[in-house]
Order: sequence, then C-alpha cells, then structure tokens
Amino acid sequence: MNLAEIKSPEDIKKLSQKEIYQLIKEIRTTIIETVGQNGGHLASNLGVVELTVALHRVFNSPKDAIIWDVSHQCYTHKLLTGRYSEFSTLRQNKGITGFTNTSESEHDFFISGHASTSISSALGLLTARRLQGKTGKVIAVIGDGALTGGMAFEALSHGGQLADNLIVILNDNQMSIDHNTGSISRYLSRLTMSKSYQSFRTNIGSLKKILPFKGRHVAKFIYRFKRSLKGLFFTNNLFTDLGFQYVGPLDGHNEVSLENVLKRVSHIRGPVVVHVVTKKGKGYKPAEENPGQFHGVGPFNKVCDTSEIKKSKTFTEVFSDLMIEYGERYPQLAGITAAMAQGTGLSEFSKKYPERFFDVGIAEEHAVTFAGGLAKGGMIPVTAIYSTFMQRSVDQLIHDISLQNVHGIFVLDRAGPVPGDGVTHQGIFDISLLRGIPDIKMLSPATEWDFHACFDFAVRSEKSVVIRYPKNACPEDRNEFKEKSQLGQGILIKNLKGEKISESEKALIVCTGGMYSESLYAQKILEKENLISDIYSLRFIKPFDFEYFYNIAEKYKGIVFIEDGIITGSISCSIYEQLLINNYRNFKTGAFQEKYYPQGTRKEILQQAGIAPENIAAMVKEVLNA
Amino acid sequence: MNLAEIKSPEDIKKLSQKEIYQLIKEIRTTIIETVGQNGGHLASNLGVVELTVALHRVFNSPKDAIIWDVSHQCYTHKLLTGRYSEFSTLRQNKGITGFTNTSESEHDFFISGHASTSISSALGLLTARRLQGKTGKVIAVIGDGALTGGMAFEALSHGGQLADNLIVILNDNQMSIDHNTGSISRYLSRLTMSKSYQSFRTNIGSLKKILPFKGRHVAKFIYRFKRSLKGLFFTNNLFTDLGFQYVGPLDGHNEVSLENVLKRVSHIRGPVVVHVVTKKGKGYKPAEENPGQFHGVGPFNKVCDTSEIKKSKTFTEVFSDLMIEYGERYPQLAGITAAMAQGTGLSEFSKKYPERFFDVGIAEEHAVTFAGGLAKGGMIPVTAIYSTFMQRSVDQLIHDISLQNVHGIFVLDRAGPVPGDGVTHQGIFDISLLRGIPDIKMLSPATEWDFHACFDFAVRSEKSVVIRYPKNACPEDRNEFKEKSQLGQGILIKNLKGEKISESEKALIVCTGGMYSESLYAQKILEKENLISDIYSLRFIKPFDFEYFYNIAEKYKGIVFIEDGIITGSISCSIYEQLLINNYRNFKTGAFQEKYYPQGTRKEILQQAGIAPENIAAMVKEVLNA
Repeated sequence: MNLAEIKSPEDIKKLSQKEIYQLIKEIRTTIIETVGQNGGHLASNLGVVELTVALHRVFNSPKDAIIWDVSHQCYTHKLLTGRYSEFSTLRQNKGITGFTNTSESEHDFFISGHASTSISSALGLLTARRLQGKTGKVIAVIGDGALTGGMAFEALSHGGQLADNLIVILNDNQMSIDHNTGSISRYLSRLTMSKSYQSFRTNIGSLKKILPFKGRHVAKFIYRFKRSLKGLFFTNNLFTDLGFQYVGPLDGHNEVSLENVLKRVSHIRGPVVVHVVTKKGKGYKPAEENPGQFHGVGPFNKVCDTSEIKKSKTFTEVFSDLMIEYGERYPQLAGITAAMAQGTGLSEFSKKYPERFFDVGIAEEHAVTFAGGLAKGGMIPVTAIYSTFMQRSVDQLIHDISLQNVHGIFVLDRAGPVPGDGVTHQGIFDISLLRGIPDIKMLSPATEWDFHACFDFAVRSEKSVVIRYPKNACPEDRNEFKEKSQLGQGILIKNLKGEKISESEKALIVCTGGMYSESLYAQKILEKENLISDIYSLRFIKPFDFEYFYNIAEKYKGIVFIEDGIITGSISCSIYEQLLINNYRNFKTGAFQEKYYPQGTRKEILQQAGIAPENIAAMVKEVLNA
Repeated sequence: MNLAEIKSPEDIKKLSQKEIYQLIKEIRTTIIETVGQNGGHLASNLGVVELTVALHRVFNSPKDAIIWDVSHQCYTHKLLTGRYSEFSTLRQNKGITGFTNTSESEHDFFISGHASTSISSALGLLTARRLQGKTGKVIAVIGDGALTGGMAFEALSHGGQLADNLIVILNDNQMSIDHNTGSISRYLSRLTMSKSYQSFRTNIGSLKKILPFKGRHVAKFIYRFKRSLKGLFFTNNLFTDLGFQYVGPLDGHNEVSLENVLKRVSHIRGPVVVHVVTKKGKGYKPAEENPGQFHGVGPFNKVCDTSEIKKSKTFTEVFSDLMIEYGERYPQLAGITAAMAQGTGLSEFSKKYPERFFDVGIAEEHAVTFAGGLAKGGMIPVTAIYSTFMQRSVDQLIHDISLQNVHGIFVLDRAGPVPGDGVTHQGIFDISLLRGIPDIKMLSPATEWDFHACFDFAVRSEKSVVIRYPKNACPEDRNEFKEKSQLGQGILIKNLKGEKISESEKALIVCTGGMYSESLYAQKILEKENLISDIYSLRFIKPFDFEYFYNIAEKYKGIVFIEDGIITGSISCSIYEQLLINNYRNFKTGAFQEKYYPQGTRKEILQQAGIAPENIAAMVKEVLNA
C-alpha cells in the first residue's frame, strides 16, 4: 500500500512496521517535491512525519480530535486524511491550504494560523464533549516556539486544573521560526540534555521489552514506571507544577517507540504533556542545516525565469537597511521581534547590534509592552511584527504605548494581501484596528525613498508611529517621495504623460502606500485608452491633513480610493465622508470587504477584493464616465 | 512623625521600628476612611501596606523604580510619595487617581490599570537603563492573579534569559479579584503550604540572628543560605525553571523581616522572584472576611439618601438573571469569566451550574479561544468580559471565533463611560475595534426588556454575537423594547407628548443602547422648551439595516447621533456617511474623541465627551434651528 492509496487514517493502522517505514519515506519525498514546486513550510513538516504517523495510528481521528497549533506542520496530517490526490495544489489559488482547514476535511477541527491557540481550543472542545457526555480524546500538538506565547501558558494553567484527560504533545524542535529564545527554550534544552534522555535515546530499541503493558491500571503503571526508570519520566518540572503529568522527552523520529508511548498515554487520566524532540527539516539536508531559511519557502525546484528576477528591493529589505543606517546614527535605537528576525528583516541589525536586539519569542503582547518600557527608559524601540500578528497586541498598543505617551516605532510587515498563507495571514485589519488609538501616527510608504522619509519621520517623532507595508517589492521610485514628511500630507505623483491636461479631465487615484504599485499599473492600463490619472499616495494614514488633500483633490473630475485593508473603519471612508460634507460626490472606493480571503498570489487576492490593477482602471473609467 | 508629615519615601527611612508600626496603623486607617468616603479598591490596598513600606525603606524611589501591576494596590505608595494631603480626593473628578499616574508623581513610572503588564514594562525600563549605562534597580510588584495572565509569563520567560537584576515581587494574596483559579494558584498554595513556610512563619523572629549579612558576595551567600535553610528558599520551582532565583514565601505582614530579606535581595545579581504572602483586606475585618466584595467598592461610610435608592436593576443584574433563565432552558449554555464572576454578574450562574461555569483567571485571550473550542464542541459559551479588557482578545475574536464560524456570545459589561476608574477603564474602544470583524453581530440593549430581546436573539443566533452595555441602572422600560429582534433594526421610541406633531418638525436622537438613558433625559429637557424629539435606539450596531432606518429617519427635520464609543470607526460615522450619500445633511454627532478620559462620575465623563443630557439637548436644538 503506497501513500496514494491512503484514503483515511484507518488505512495506515493496518500497515506493517516495514510498510510504515516505507510510507514515512514516501511522505517526506512528497512534501519535499510539493514544497519545491509550490513553496510552503518545509522544515517544520519534515520534522513531524513520524509523530503524525504515530498519532494517527494510535488515535482514531476524527473521533479523537488532533489539533495542530499554528498548523503549518499539518502536511503529513493532510496526506494521511484523504488529501494526497490534491496535495499538488498546496497553497495554490483554490487548492488545498497550507494550514488546517475545516472545509477540507472532518479531520481538521479548527482553521489555524496564529500561534499558541491549540491548547485553549483543545481544552474547550474536550470540555464541551465531556459536558455533553461524548467520548473521544482531544490532542493538542504545539511547538516549543508557540509555547512561549502567553496564551498557551494561560491554557496550561486552566487545563492543569480541569481533571480531564487533555493530551498536549509538545513538539520540541528547539527553535520556533528563528532560533528560539527565552527561558522556556533553555528550560526544554535542559530537560533534553539530561543523562536520562541521552541514554533513553540509545536504549530505545529495548524499551518494548522492558515495559510490558497490561492494559488496565495505567496510572499505577505510570507511577511504577516513573520510579523504575527515574529520569525518563521527570518527577517534577514546569508542566507537573501546572498540574499536568509529564512524559518524555521522547525521540520524535522513532515511530515505533512514539506509538508505544502514545498508546500508554492514551489511557492516562487527567491532563498530560508528552514531550517529543524532533529535528526540523529531518530528511532533507539543506533544511536540516538551515531550518530557519526553510521555515516558509518559495518554490525552490522551479527553473528560474530570468525575466522575473526582481531588480528592486522588497520593503522588508529596505527596512533591514534602514535599521542598520539609523542604528548607527541613533545609539538609542533598539530592535524587537517576536520570533521573526529573518521574516521581518531584523537579522542584520541583530548581528551588528546584538546588545540592542531583542527576540522575545512568539510573544507579541510582551514585545509591545517591553517596547513601552524601553521607550520610557529613553530608548527608541522599533518593534517589527507582521500585520496579522499585531492583532494580538491591540490592548498593549493602547494601554502600554499610546496611554504612556512614549516614543516607539511599530513596523507592520505583510500589511495588505499576503500571498500563499491564506485566511489567517492577510494583513487587512490593522488600519481599522489601530486608526482609533489616540495619538498614534500611522504611515504607509509607497516606495523605497518614501519608506526612508517615513522612517526618518518616525525616528524624529516624539510620539509613537506605526509604519505598515506589504510583502512586495518596492515599485519604481519618483523624486517626489524624497520630500520630507509633512504631518498628515500625502505625495502627489502626477502622470508625466498628462502634464498638459487639466485636472478637471483627470481622475485622482488615492491609495495607501501598499497599493501604489497597482495604482501605477492601473495608470498604465488607462493610458492605452488615453485616460490620464494622477496618484495621491497616503504617506500618512493618520493623522490625515484633509485641507491639504482637498486643495489638490477638488480639482479632479473624479477620485478613486484604493486601500489594502478592510472597508470598515478604513481611512478611505473617513476621507470620502469629508468629501461628501464638502459636496464632492464623484468617487469610488475599493478595499477589502469584511470577510476572509483565501490563499492566492498577491494579484489573485487583490482580484478577489476587486482592487487589482484592472479593477482600479475600471473604477477610474467610471468616475471619468469613460 | 505622622503620615501627614511624610513628603517623600526618604522620610520613612529615618523612622524607628516603633514609628513604622505606628505609621502602618495610620496608613490603614487613612485608606479605610478614604475608601469609605470615596469608594475604591480596599482589600488589595490593605494587603500591601507592610510590603509597600518595606519596599520604600529598602529601595530609593524614584532612582529605583517600583512598578505596580494593575496598580489598584498603590494607595500606600501614593501616601508615602507626597500625596497624603490630596488623598481625600481619591477617585474624584480632578482628584488623585486610584491607579499609578505619571502626571501625579515622579514615583509613578507607568499609568496602569490592565493586568499582567508590570514585568514587561519593568524589563523594558531596566534594559533601557542598562543599555545607557544608568544604574537604579527596577522592581515589579505583581499579584498572583495577574500572574495567570499570559503576558506575565511571556515576560518571565524573556526576563529569565536576560541576566539583569530584575526584581519581581509576587504579591500572593491567594486570590485575584474573585477566588483565584487555575494551576498557578494551586501551585502557589502548594508552595506556601509547605512545612518550611509554616515553620518559617513561627520562627521569623529569630531569622535575623540566624542570618548575619556581610554585604558582599551575595550570590554565594544566597547559595549557602539556600543549602543551610533548605525549604525556605526552594531549590527548584516554576520560577527557577524560568531562570529566576526564588526567595520565599515570606510573611507579607511582617515589615521587619520583609525589609531584611529585601535588603539582601537588592544585592542579588540576575533576575529574582520574591514570593510574599499577604492577606487581602488585612486589618479591616469585613474586608478580610469577604475580600471579593471589598475589591472595588462604592463609598460605604456615607449615610444613604433614601431618595437615591435605585428602583431598577443594573444591566449587570439583568445579565445575571438572564444567565439563570437561559441556563435552565439551554443545557448547552456555559458561562466564562476572566476572574470577574462577581463584577460581571456570573456568580449566581456559577452557583447554580458549577459544571458549566469556567473562571479561567485573568486570561482574556485564553477565555475567548476556550469559548471557541466549547462552541465548536456544541456548547453555547457566554463569555463576560469588561469592554476595556476585551481589547486583549481582539485577535482571538477574529482568529478563534469569527474565522471558525462558531456560535458564542460575548458580553461586554462596562461599555462606555466607567465611573471612578479613569483612563484605563473607559469602555470606549470596543465598537471601533470589533465592528470590522467579519460576521460578528453587535448589539447594545437600552433597557431590561431590550436586553432580554437582545440576549434571546444572541442565544438563537447561528453565529457569534457581542452584547455591550454600560455600568449603569436600566432606564424606564417601554413596550417597544419587548419586540423581538429583527436583524439590523433599532427600536423607535416616540415621545408620547409629541404624537400629533409631524416628524418634519421633530428631531430624531439616534443612540447606542447605553446612551438611551441620557437621550431620554435630553428629551425631557427639551420638552420644557416645547421641543419634541423621538429616539431611535440602536439595538443593532452591526449589522445595521440602513433602509429600515432611513425610512424612519428621513422624515425628521434633523438627526442627532449619540454614541458611547470613540468617533473613529464609529457606527454613527457609518450611518451618517450613508445619510450624506442620500443627501440628508441636517445631523450632529456626539461621541468620545480619540483621547483618554480621566476619572469622574458617569455624568462628569459624559460632560467631558460632550454627550451629557444637556449637550444632547443642545445638539437637538441646533438641528431644529431652535
């Protein structure tokens, strides 16, 4: 029986040990090939192949619920739950998603993408089942990185108190996305460095003989087991302190022994943590050696089309450079990341200024409040967090930044559409969520030079500034973007081909910086029909100098607003409200609607939202009655 | 030297032990009397008198920074830092605040009010000082309740890794606001139940003799100390696992011994947790016996004016009754609180249906995601969280509720102005923050019957519903509020005195449910001038049926919008935007501005926001040109 024939987890229960080894190999090959084609999360998925197989052989999904934290490590789970034939569409538009997805399979219980939620979700599901007299076990699989997130701890603290048999699998690959930091990480290392674990690894082959399992009285057995094999089961640690039984550390790549232990664990009453040590990238040398680089990757097998080689920097790269430049000029500048030094572009800064660089682990709330403390102490903290993850820190931005009247910079990478990752990762809520926070300024650079001006403004500001930008390359620059930032004022980019045309015959495209690329492209589409439009790029989302803007805008025949955020609470709405008050009525608005946007390329996502270049061009034609 | 003469912490350093005892007595009396007059946090403040005195005698504030978590326990700190003479204005409009306040004193480092932030703030401040070569210790004082909050754990995990000498004082009063739940609480109890602590308590008198302190080599000393007095200093526990040294548990009401230990602690290198056991309400019998009731209290010394005895229920009381009523009808209804069973009115439900009631500790994020799990498992979780604290769970409402398409009810008590507590507690951001979350409905009941209809709608709904209401008594009811909820439709309350007057001569006051009281009052003010207005109460903030509304509203001469939330991203803006599109222009809007509103009575806060009854009446007159 090969992987293609596996239609459900039931099928793998019948396989012999030899067939399982074969299956595991096939799974690895499939993952490497597919991610090579489509991009995706490689290292984390290669790390949990044996664990996932063991889980599905021991437990009965979906009667037993396996809940994957963040869920970027769910590829093997997908392959074993009837999605092999579609697996080649991984992360493609309309294909299967890179995360668990309740609409794909009854084996997926939650849509997931943000870290540290699995124990809470699992505890809720388990409690609901018990209250309704339903059986079925609930297993949360959480990485050591996600364990640094506070809400995982909140859930452990609550879960350790409920006597129910929640099973938490700690998938300890000794790093989250970047190298794991924080005491939790050091603590787990200490556990795994212990002699007992080391000898356990070498003696694992004989474990089965040592431990005959007699079915009943498991609690007693575990107790004796503990005493007889002291150190294999630690008697007292962080997890037992919180009310969990603790099993481990186990070798996460020995499928047979994992199965054996999980079988025993499945009979434990009360909450239990099973500590499994895995190796990220296992089975693929480049990923084993450099798991950070292979965390989330683009396609790496495709032949590179030289015409596609990008000439311009990405916004992330510009940020990386700015941190080095300003880090040198301002000794009080500090960099903070929540386990995303590579993703956010802070790696270079961390190497050059290690004493001013802080990776707090997957802990966005602490990151922001820690920044507040740094700022209060006279530093200028630059906290770089993806737009979607900043949703975690709304209260901290209010309570620990804005209210404290401190000067910090908050950099939201991946604002707007985020290719590939799907519903949980689109950075479309930030403007709506943060725009009402008192005194916080919000900027959206359109190009490299614009970013430079925005960053310079942010560093020189006296209060806190949010800078948001997309996961995209910077579009071609214009001298106008070199202008120093004037509070609340955007940048007017006149179409050079329309210099002699009066504004009353032209349209003005008003866009957030992140949508400047597409606005430019729309401009070009329109030129083919001899329709000329200028662009007003919203360097400032907040504050917004309406008078300055209106002096420019009122001359235009029509206005089109383009925003890479949700329409509710948008800056576009706020501006056209004022236009309406001024009796200017010829405008159109394009933005994300209040819904979740599935995976796709940047262009596909923008098309779904109706703000791809063609859509913008169509809107311009409407306001021009063309 | 008595309390009135203490101008700064320096003054108490000179006092003899006898004078200190006297001072402590005086502080307790002052607190009890002032809270008796003004209301405030009693039990928590009485619990930390000795601890605060000891901290200020050992450390040198403000060179050393003492950072209070939540900071409702800062009264003694305020009395010792030059605020005795103003202390009688505690929590009054323009008086000193009930929380730390950077604008009152250089001894206050952060404005605080939300839990679990102190370790992050302290770590940031300390790190900033060290990076700039500044000295000065930083001490975070955090309660065992706030320790259940995940971000405290995130900060401990980060802090344990930085080798700096952060001092965390764990003020363990064995309950947060309600009885503390969760494993952390049980764990701390276990520590304090240990024999060593018990004997430590009785032998404390001789401690000084046992432990001569020689100034230098403190680390070594501590080590020897540990070994010689095994059990007093635990060798291995949750905190040491996270990289902290651990000292305790200590008797929090023995000022002398606290001073001695803190002196030693002040020389420890590296991060340290000092575990201090205190008794909430210490020194005031009623508060000792019932600390939950004396957590935040109204004035209890004033003679009750019988004319003020309220006849109607508060919204919280109505919620409490609804939970009992629907809990009986719906066995799948569950109640969740984040350490606020009394405050939110869930206590009754918890007694009647203990198996369906969950107090997760001060852990709003976990609360919401746990609710998502319960809902996924077929329960209908009702999660009751104050509006201001729901700011903590925005991402969870998006990622773990809305995206999962589950049916849960989220009840935001204390939405709108919150008397007394000041800037950190006003519930004015919720509408703006939550209105853009896909598919979540948001309701705002105006009266008891309205609440009933809203709650009924929420229970029968298929998706999640947020219900927000103020800390206020329910205004007089009208039969219209008994109408069953129709999606998106508000309730028109016609002024009975204006039945014969045409709408074209009247104004329509459109208000969130929470502002119905004041709208009614404004109506009455206007009647005196023979100006008639009707009220449209926004039972639904989202979705909003504009067509239904406009059919009613367009007939009126003018419209006044009143919203107890910030104007940015408000529902008022969204509605009048549509009015403008429809060319209806005679309206006025009253809402909170983007700023922080200090303490005051409900009326005083509304006056500051310009939406007290008189303000509403004035706006109505404007739109009526009267």
